[in-house]
Order: sequence, then structure tokens, then C-alpha cells
Amino acid sequence: MSTPKPVYPGKTILASKIAAQYSDEIKQGVAELDFKPTLVGFLANDDPAAVMYANWSAKTTESLGFTYKLIQCDKNDLEMHILKANETPSVHGIMVYFPVFGDLQDLYLQQCVSPHKDVEGLNHLYYRNMYHNIRFLDEQQQQKSILPCTPLAVVKIMEYLQVYNPLIDYGNRLYGKKVVIVNRSEIVGRPLAALLANDGATVYSVDINNIQEFTRGNDLSLSRHQVKPLEGTSQLNELISEADVIITGVPTAAYKFPTEAVKNGAVCINFSSEKNFREDIKTKAGLYVPNIGKVTQAMLLRNLLRLIENKKRRENAV
Amino acid sequence: MSTPKPVYPGKTILASKIAAQYSDEIKQGVAELDFKPTLVGFLANDDPAAVMYANWSAKTTESLGFTYKLIQCDKNDLEMHILKANETPSVHGIMVYFPVFGDLQDLYLQQCVSPHKDVEGLNHLYYRNMYHNIRFLDEQQQQKSILPCTPLAVVKIMEYLQVYNPLIDYGNRLYGKKVVIVNRSEIVGRPLAALLANDGATVYSVDINNIQEFTRGNDLSLSRHQVKPLEGTSQLNELISEADVIITGVPTAAYKFPTEAVKNGAVCINFSSEKNFREDIKTKAGLYVPNIGKVTQAMLLRNLLRLIENKKRRENAV
Repeated sequence: MSTPKPVYPGKTILASKIAAQYSDEIKQGVAELDFKPTLVGFLANDDPAAVMYANWSAKTTESLGFTYKLIQCDKNDLEMHILKANETPSVHGIMVYFPVFGDLQDLYLQQCVSPHKDVEGLNHLYYRNMYHNIRFLDEQQQQKSILPCTPLAVVKIMEYLQVYNPLIDYGNRLYGKKVVIVNRSEIVGRPLAALLANDGATVYSVDINNIQEFTRGNDLSLSRHQVKPLEGTSQLNELISEADVIITGVPTAAYKFPTEAVKNGAVCINFSSEKNFREDIKTKAGLYVPNIGKVTQAMLLRNLLRLIENKKRRENAV
Repeated sequence: MSTPKPVYPGKTILASKIAAQYSDEIKQGVAELDFKPTLVGFLANDDPAAVMYANWSAKTTESLGFTYKLIQCDKNDLEMHILKANETPSVHGIMVYFPVFGDLQDLYLQQCVSPHKDVEGLNHLYYRNMYHNIRFLDEQQQQKSILPCTPLAVVKIMEYLQVYNPLIDYGNRLYGKKVVIVNRSEIVGRPLAALLANDGATVYSVDINNIQEFTRGNDLSLSRHQVKPLEGTSQLNELISEADVIITGVPTAAYKFPTEAVKNGAVCINFSSEKNFREDIKTKAGLYVPNIGKVTQAMLLRNLLRLIENKKRRENAV
């Protein structure tokens, strides 16, 4: 007797499965507090998809023990609402459903959220710390810096998939791993490349214009990553064929990653809301994560608990 | 504040650390039996190193709850002693300290040990099952086949080092991994190449004459590995530079693996009693296991428990 062979040897791993362990951890963290933390979400557009997403995140947030308040407002009043929430002690975390104006004004609004309540980890302070591989907010290393929740979700997924090797020292656990990231947005792609390179990977960050290498050097002798642009994009397929991990985040339905260039057994993770991998990626991927939304949501709530912990430590330090 | 950076990012992992979990498992297994199993070791040479090794294995074996009997005899009486031990119900496992004659007669003696007591897993039956990826002795899949203990030790080490990915189905967990093995002995190198290829790796088996590729195909579509000789050995350094795992077993002190060809972050395992890697391998290796003896010894005793379990299941099946 032999069990029937699967069509392909790899596995598809759903975000819900990966998120489950964090949900338990977060529930536990909330239960240990002597109050019920409140997350406020600001919705200043009428996009029905955004409303649906807001309702879904409300449900998840409340199911883990938090209070969730959705505040719908005119986009021109949003800044005032954010500033008020920054000052309201009963509001512990703030998130904004972007796009609002859909232009650079959204970045301005993003930075209006106090870093002490910025559950998405979008404040410039947090990005700067991440790029410079600074992991604490204070010299005493009591308050941990917050990581932007989508890049953090990808890191946690890679830990779950055992791409990170826990036998290697913390901070070097991606030593020797080659990663291709197709997306270099300021929100996800570029910070993710930096995070993974800071953890020891050699990252090829790809956008429509060029390829950049993010690395601490082959021997990780640098304490933070450096970025080097490659000449042109002609070597892309060769880089893909050597990649241990491929991460996509292209926000267009038409874009499809070239499965034929992928090496068998590669780990493939898509963070776009579009399906960037074709169905046949399963013939190649060792582990395939088709979307990451539920892990991102868990990281957002994990960040909220960390902000509360940081606040406590700040107050104790005074 | 920052912790001092290590000279190199990889880690050296000692066999004793890896063996510890198996020692606990074995002790537990012995404790669950209603008798104390006996392992007999035959020593038919006067080599003081062999005597020392026999004494060391006696000590380990007894510390885990077994009875160990060392039988020293003339090499010309060894066959008779083995055949007698095969028939003695109070002897549960048999091992022979080779070399005895130091020629092909040793292979003959090896096959004299009953497969039911062959703790080293050297019987032809076990090798054949391993090469054909047959994991059970009976159609009912009740009695597990025994694996030769040195190749098995390397597999268990690779599991410990998380080269095997447990999220992938059992039997495919090395999918996408490239392995170079320098040694193609019948005892270790060739069976190890087959084992790792059967588990999904692409293995390059290197000896002084040539390089052979062991693989179930890039997509693991074959149910057992096939072997393909490569043309010459000129591509060796290129294969090394792409290897995720490098395993050495060259029994000469002069041989040293070319560190300069190794890719940063590679897993390096030496099963030779000589140090096949130079000290500078630590500048390259992600994880480095300098020798494996203690894990091999644990696998031998694990095999003994499995032989006892198989005997019980055989008797119950009658």
C-alpha cells in the first residue's frame, strides 16, 4: 500500500493558519491588561470595498478582546479627528483606511498619527529605526520599536515557514538566503527589503525601473544593510532562478510572476490583494502563501499591545 | 548599547547537543520495556583505538539503560560467535567493530548478523529497502525498515538543523535543497545520497573519480531517486557554490574541503573521523557540525529499540 502521491510536492499555507498562533498570543495579552484597549479606525472615503474591509477588521479586533470604534468622517475633517484622537487617553491605537485623497496628502495625514498610537507602524520614526536596524526606542532598551505591520507580517510568515533558522543568532537568521521582492513601495517593498537584509538575507528588490541589492555583505560584516543598484534588469530571471524566497506585491490584476523562472522548492509569498502568482506556481513552490491579510491584521493588534507596553514602560521610567 | 558582534554569523553545533534529545527518547523507550535489552559488541582486532571506542560505546549504551556485552575473540572465530548470538534469545542487538580482516571478507561477516539483530542497519535487506524508498518490512506497514546508523545520523542532524522543512509532506521535506556529499562509500556516502534524494533533495555525490547526481527530478515526480553520472569533475566548484548543504566523509587527515568555494550560510556536516573542513569554514557556514559520532551512537540504540518493536509486531501478527 502507498498513499496517493500529490500532484506537486509543495504545500499551500493559508494566512489564517499562520495568524492563529498570534491570535492566541494577542488574546492572552489583552486578558492580562487591567483595561480593555480601544482601537479607532478612521474611514474617510465611500469606497464600498473599504467599508467592507473596515467591518472585517472591526470584527477581528473585537473577537480578540479589544474595543473597536469606526469613525467615518469627511476627508477634510480627518486631520482634526486624528489630532483629537492622539490626545484622547481612552484611545490606545489609531489606524486610517487609505487612500483618502489618493495623493501625497495621504502621507501627511499618516504622519499626523501620534507614534504612541500608530498601530500600523507608519510613523517616520519607526521606518527610520527599521532602516538603521535600531530595535529599541530608548537607550535602556526597554521600549521596542514598532515595525510597519505588512512587512512585519511577511517576516512572521517567513519565521512560520522556517525560512528563518532559529539555531543562528537573532538578527542573522536569514544568513545565506536569497530573496526576490517584486515591489519597492515606501509602505511595504522597500522597508521589507531592508528588514530581511538586516536579518541576514541578500535581497533583490525589483520594480519596473530597476533591481537593487540590499545586503549586509556576504559575511554579514555590516551591522546594517547597504543598497546597490544593479545594471539594468536583464539578469532578473537568473536572480529569480536562484531565489530561495520570492515575495510579490504588484497591485495590478494583469501582472503575473513568471513561474517558469522559479526554482523548485522556493518559498513564494504574495502580499498584493491581486493574485500575483499564477495557479501553476504550485508545481514549483515548496511553500506558497497566496495572501497575507490575516497575518497583517494580527500584527496590527500585536503592535497595539506593544504600544501599550511601551507607554507603561515610559511611565515607569519617569 | 549593543551586544558585541561575533566574528562570523554562523554557529557551530556539537553532536552531543543534537544527540541529547535522542538519549532522552531512548531512555524512555527502554524504561517502557518489561526487560532490559542486551547489545553485544564483537571486537576481533587488537587496535587500541578500537578498544577505546568499544569502551566508550559500552558506557553510552549502559547509561541509557541497556546491558552491553563486549565479546573479544580471534577473527577466525568471529563468524561462529555471530551465528551463535543470532540464535541466542537474550541477545537483542549485535554490532561488530570493523575492520576485522580489512578486506571483502568483512562484508561477508557483516551479512552474517541476523537482520533481526542488526543494530547498525548494515544488512543487505535494509540497504535495498532504503535505495528503493521502501519504508516498511511488511505489507501491513507495521514493521519499520531499519536505516544504516551513520546515514540516519546525518538525516537526524539535518532535521535538527531545520534543513528538513516539516511543513512539507513527509518524504518531500528536502524539496529544492542542493546537497554535495564528498564520499561515496557503500556504508555511508552512497546510501546517504539515496536517502537525501529520496527525501526530495538534489544530491551531488562526489568521489575521487567522478560526480553523480541523485534526484527524484526537479519536481519530485519520481517515487525514488535516479542516479546520473556527470561529465568529469570540472563543474565541482560551481556545484559547491550552489550547495545548501555540504557533507564530508573523507578518511584522510590531508584532505581539506575548499572553504573558498562554499556559499555563505551553507550547512556543513563532517562525518569523517578526520577534520575534513578547515577551521575557516566557520567564516562561511551558516551551521557547522564538526563531527557526528554521538548522534550515530544514539541512532544505533534507536535501531535496537526498533528491532525489538519489530519483533513484538512480528510475533503479534502470527
